[in-house]
Amino acid sequence: MTEKLNVVPFVSVDHMMKLVLAVGVERFLTELSAYVEEDFLRWEQFDKTPRIASHSHDGVIELMPTSDGHLYGFKYVNGHPKNTRDGRQTVTAFGVLADVGNGYPMLLTEMTILTALRTAATSAVAAKYLAPKGADTMAIIGNGAQSEFQALAFKALLGVNKLRLYDIDASASRKCQANLADMGFDIVISDNAQDAVEGAHIITTVTADKQLATILTDNMVGTGVHINAVGGDCPGKTELHKDILLRSDIFVEFPPQTRIEGEIQQLPADHPVIELWQVMAGKAQGRSSSAQVTLFDSVGFAIEDFSALRYVRDKLIDTGLFEELDLLADPDEPRDLFGMLLRAAKASAA
Amino acid sequence: MTEKLNVVPFVSVDHMMKLVLAVGVERFLTELSAYVEEDFLRWEQFDKTPRIASHSHDGVIELMPTSDGHLYGFKYVNGHPKNTRDGRQTVTAFGVLADVGNGYPMLLTEMTILTALRTAATSAVAAKYLAPKGADTMAIIGNGAQSEFQALAFKALLGVNKLRLYDIDASASRKCQANLADMGFDIVISDNAQDAVEGAHIITTVTADKQLATILTDNMVGTGVHINAVGGDCPGKTELHKDILLRSDIFVEFPPQTRIEGEIQQLPADHPVIELWQVMAGKAQGRSSSAQVTLFDSVGFAIEDFSALRYVRDKLIDTGLFEELDLLADPDEPRDLFGMLLRAAKASAA
Repeated sequence: MTEKLNVVPFVSVDHMMKLVLAVGVERFLTELSAYVEEDFLRWEQFDKTPRIASHSHDGVIELMPTSDGHLYGFKYVNGHPKNTRDGRQTVTAFGVLADVGNGYPMLLTEMTILTALRTAATSAVAAKYLAPKGADTMAIIGNGAQSEFQALAFKALLGVNKLRLYDIDASASRKCQANLADMGFDIVISDNAQDAVEGAHIITTVTADKQLATILTDNMVGTGVHINAVGGDCPGKTELHKDILLRSDIFVEFPPQTRIEGEIQQLPADHPVIELWQVMAGKAQGRSSSAQVTLFDSVGFAIEDFSALRYVRDKLIDTGLFEELDLLADPDEPRDLFGMLLRAAKASAA
Repeated sequence: MTEKLNVVPFVSVDHMMKLVLAVGVERFLTELSAYVEEDFLRWEQFDKTPRIASHSHDGVIELMPTSDGHLYGFKYVNGHPKNTRDGRQTVTAFGVLADVGNGYPMLLTEMTILTALRTAATSAVAAKYLAPKGADTMAIIGNGAQSEFQALAFKALLGVNKLRLYDIDASASRKCQANLADMGFDIVISDNAQDAVEGAHIITTVTADKQLATILTDNMVGTGVHINAVGGDCPGKTELHKDILLRSDIFVEFPPQTRIEGEIQQLPADHPVIELWQVMAGKAQGRSSSAQVTLFDSVGFAIEDFSALRYVRDKLIDTGLFEELDLLADPDEPRDLFGMLLRAAKASAA
């Protein structure tokens, strides 16, 4: 990409949008899903740690690092539910991919858009293993920034083409419907969550409030459905009634993190959960009967961001959709950092 | 600085050099020291955690986050001793300052140069409290990338004007001498470490090899000196013989991190150490006698980077030495991230 040691390729928001559009949203989601699946299948090769969270009154800032021994990736991401009040995003993110061998960053990229894409891709990968066969109808509770990405990922990977939308703010549902117009969906907006889940094979919950909410109660969830619980992702933020959890088989990304952040924070620390990667690898069973309620308690894990960073990095070579950032000091003689400063002084005086 | 919500000010390596030169190296170090001291004096307000390290065969990549409840900062930094072999820096770094209230990054900056400056500034602040009165002679063992910054920080804050240099590679010492020519130092290059420490009031060790080295042995350290041990800063990387530690009063930044990374990794976990911030705050004694050997077991802590990020941020307003980076997605309607993508498609089709 470049041989200049000081330079790190940077993907701005503008370049990320151009990249997603150049590839096509559904193809992007499908290809990204393949990277996620590839990394989940080699789960044991990764350094894994729960994300490092800095909580404050209004939200959280998190760092999510991981490494496979060759590449190192991390994401900076915030979660501030009140941000929309002053026109800001609830979640913004950026990330870095680096070479473990020399520690040099290889890519800096926006990850606000990319996080929405990787979250949706991971949800759809999980559903591929867990949703009932032939599932083509999905309820989406919470029609904010992530809803369209979820819809398109499930369409691309599972063939979901009927959506039942609900949001406490009806304008969010209308926004979601309008954005997805002419994309091959049959869309119904519901007046309440109960109506929305009616007849759905898959229920996606993706609300944003930081509180112990009950978006779904037990009576609303019929047998055989797959629940894709995306919105509950930090301590004190859940979406499902505990009774739903108790009659579901629960699939998670990285148990030590999900126990802190996921829906299962409502359950005892020894409540059995199944690691999603083990299902993919054939080491654990996914859906075992048509009556079973499966629950993907998604909180988002560093390996998914790592997959997304890898994917974007691979796409840059062909597309050229990046800038060069002068991020790393590169003196002619590596030990002469101060001399570089002196030469810069001379150069500017000349 | 800017009202565009998508934009984060970015300080490139080139801009950082221009900033340091515009301010002047010694003044930069003096002002930065004041920020470090200010933050050490409110130590208890900070979220503190040992850095998150990802170790590999050839080095380490670390994330160093901290927050005072209003601002959040983190640094990405690598340490790869073999990097100089292929023309790369041993240590490179960049960092981010963010607003805790909304989680938005406020500054992205190179920190390779800035880390050298903040490390030197912190060393000099520590020495202000610990070095013998009237100390004007410093030995510097290890004359690589950080040596000149250390020299200038000690000159600016303590009036050190006599340097005794030693490096296993004599060309490094000559490079350091040449870089510091005409800056008000009386400089002697020594043939060995023993000669270098002769008559020095302050001994700075700042070597780079990742191994249990013994740069200084017990017989080389006379009474009354202050040792500024900078190079030993990760597990398996130390510079001083254990016997020196046993007859020194040891001052550290953040004990849980220093026990893992510092010279004191050679000592039992309950060996007494004194927190530097407590000395500054008058809660613990610094140097108590002229015969005492004081040792600052420096490993570099996140709060120092936080201070450096704050300082750079404050300097930008006057100097304008930054670029605007399109890092954050900023849809017209915050919940309409997907709609932003659709509008970008329309805009490019138009």
